[in-house]
Amino acid sequence: MSQQITLYTAKICPYAHRAEIALAEAKVEYTRFEIDLRNKPDWYVPKVNPVGKVPAIAYGGPTVPADQPSPESTKLVESLVLVEFIADLFPESGILPKDPVLRAKARLFVDAVSNKVSPAQAAVLIRGEDPEQLVQAYEAVQALLPPQGFAIGEFSAADIAIAPFLARIELNLANDLGGFPADQGEGPKILELLRAPKLARLQQYFKDIQARPSFATTFDKEHVLASSKRRFAELRAKKYGA
Amino acid sequence: MSQQITLYTAKICPYAHRAEIALAEAKVEYTRFEIDLRNKPDWYVPKVNPVGKVPAIAYGGPTVPADQPSPESTKLVESLVLVEFIADLFPESGILPKDPVLRAKARLFVDAVSNKVSPAQAAVLIRGEDPEQLVQAYEAVQALLPPQGFAIGEFSAADIAIAPFLARIELNLANDLGGFPADQGEGPKILELLRAPKLARLQQYFKDIQARPSFATTFDKEHVLASSKRRFAELRAKKYGA
Ligand SMILES: [Ca+2]
Repeated sequence: MSQQITLYTAKICPYAHRAEIALAEAKVEYTRFEIDLRNKPDWYVPKVNPVGKVPAIAYGGPTVPADQPSPESTKLVESLVLVEFIADLFPESGILPKDPVLRAKARLFVDAVSNKVSPAQAAVLIRGEDPEQLVQAYEAVQALLPPQGFAIGEFSAADIAIAPFLARIELNLANDLGGFPADQGEGPKILELLRAPKLARLQQYFKDIQARPSFATTFDKEHVLASSKRRFAELRAKKYGA
Repeated sequence: MSQQITLYTAKICPYAHRAEIALAEAKVEYTRFEIDLRNKPDWYVPKVNPVGKVPAIAYGGPTVPADQPSPESTKLVESLVLVEFIADLFPESGILPKDPVLRAKARLFVDAVSNKVSPAQAAVLIRGEDPEQLVQAYEAVQALLPPQGFAIGEFSAADIAIAPFLARIELNLANDLGGFPADQGEGPKILELLRAPKLARLQQYFKDIQARPSFATTFDKEHVLASSKRRFAELRAKKYGA
């Protein structure tokens, strides 16, 4: 039986979002504590995560308020480690199936997300580089998908790894947010590239993800959009002048 | 019960070495096929690994010679995915323990190896950058070690991830091999930094790893050294002129 779980998270963060989807898949009760990444509480770095990032989990220990973490709970970090941890705690969740080959395939998909989708997202959406990188990353993960269904058939850690990134890429581009000049239609233009017929399978996959309750109930579109608008306004002011 | 395992590997490669240590820990019979990375067999890319790297595993399928891989076997790649796969196939190997918290701690250690030790190795040993990076990476993983024993107590995937890198760093530096000029004692000088008293715990840990049979029987020091000598001679010829 599992002990108490406190998740330190932030709605804006795609990495933290992974842990939230995994906990929703496991249908487990836990304490959710939102960390304001621009104004972290003083106790967060010394008592939860020395590097100050989200997500982090405090597991077990005595019953304490989330903002007074006990030194007796185990502190765990890194989104992919947390997803595996939740899969291990709740094997019946199916976050990782029992079959070793399917588990390996889920992890290979996660690897492609880490090494292709995340870097391409950073390059195109933050640094404003050639959108072709993002198209190629989408093609690479699309090539790993079966003809229908989720990455390894049933919903798994593979889909949890990519979902927060697909959602934020689409939301930002649809709202013309990114590391490119505003008001020139650059965002929607890139989005059109991602919606090309050659990426139809990935788009269907993204629709299936959006319909998944664990995703739908954990993605706060309005909050993410509002935070993104602030963040990109600052980034553009630095890059192009206010 | 597991099916046939064929490992495509190369003694020189630290990533492939991880899969060999894991299979030795699992005490499983498998077919080992050495890939000459400088002269890959024609069938390797089309029939085993499209990106041409080692390690790769062909799992299951009919009984075939390793150099005639069957399309019916499952092909798996990426060293860390393979270590988890072997851990999943052979849970009694203890490559990953049963306790979810210990499993998470092993994966956090692996993460530090991927994000600190490997990049520092590449920076210092290949690109000849400031050795201080390597000292800091060693300090970071040392900070994760318990007072004695392996990374999470018993030998695990954590130790498998780092062992091939520690071994190659020490071997190359002791032989003055790296992306720095030859014959100026640079290698031994860096090695001395890594053997400073403040890194004594990591050095003891490395001794414990070297004494582990799964490591000792899979590290072909003479072969790795001979290959490294060729490789660094080429690299230095390019960098400093022949
Ligand atoms: Ca990585």
